[in-house]
Amino acid sequence: MNIEIERKFLVVGDAWKKQGTPILIRQGYLSSHPDRVVRVRVEGETGTLTIKGRVEGISRGEWEYVIPLEEANALLSGLCERPLIEKTRTRIVHAGLTWEVDAFLGDNAGLVVAEIELQSETQAFERPQWVGQEVSDDARYFNASLLRHPYKDWQQAR
Amino acid sequence: MNIEIERKFLVVGDAWKKQGTPILIRQGYLSSHPDRVVRVRVEGETGTLTIKGRVEGISRGEWEYVIPLEEANALLSGLCERPLIEKTRTRIVHAGLTWEVDAFLGDNAGLVVAEIELQSETQAFERPQWVGQEVSDDARYFNASLLRHPYKDWQQAR
Repeated sequence: MNIEIERKFLVVGDAWKKQGTPILIRQGYLSSHPDRVVRVRVEGETGTLTIKGRVEGISRGEWEYVIPLEEANALLSGLCERPLIEKTRTRIVHAGLTWEVDAFLGDNAGLVVAEIELQSETQAFERPQWVGQEVSDDARYFNASLLRHPYKDWQQAR
Repeated sequence: MNIEIERKFLVVGDAWKKQGTPILIRQGYLSSHPDRVVRVRVEGETGTLTIKGRVEGISRGEWEYVIPLEEANALLSGLCERPLIEKTRTRIVHAGLTWEVDAFLGDNAGLVVAEIELQSETQAFERPQWVGQEVSDDARYFNASLLRHPYKDWQQAR
């Protein structure tokens, strides 16, 4: 198990797009229960099965297993909850840390968030100019939450 | 993926006990949804993560991954739904097929079932004398169902 310590922010503007190459991610959930998320993901040619425990602040236990690509695709198409989540991920190194900028597709189109993984909850870091409001604590932005409450339905929030 | 074709029977009497050595199995569920079961199991020194699709007759899609024992134990103790299922499994070869006799513990004590895995739904097989009523189609006997409806609560059935 790893302890995953992440901070998540909304992205402002398009300037980030020039700084990296987007990769398509398709993912689905065998469990979207917040205490025991089980996620299937295909990123490029790699399939993974990831288990995540309850979020404690900005930390979360995570167990990840690489699985054959064809098995990941079969689980996505045959077993996972509907809908699947699709997004592009662009990795951008800024001041020594790698930011992952996720631009969502489908029912979540328009939502763009940036995440960094930290070594400790108090680690300092420098924000790129295109990083806006922090949403680490906002459960609406959990990918598993977007299944049932996609961004297109967030009328009140915009 | 494998297609798992199984038949399941109640066990009558104790004669089977002399025919094999029981191994303790502890298992729990990250999802007990019948369309997408995710099971963590520790049997002896081996940890597995198993995904099962919807039951179609006596067949079911199954994906199984061996995971480190300590990770399986951590998932069982920290993340899986409560209660865990504990049972002993005794493997007995009879007329060329391996029967798995599962004697449940805890809230399911008293329940003993025997399963065989077949190559086709119509495959013929010989029943040992200690094999009784078939329960392949009875969802109460699915291990994931025993979480919420343990055998000790089946007053009407006995």
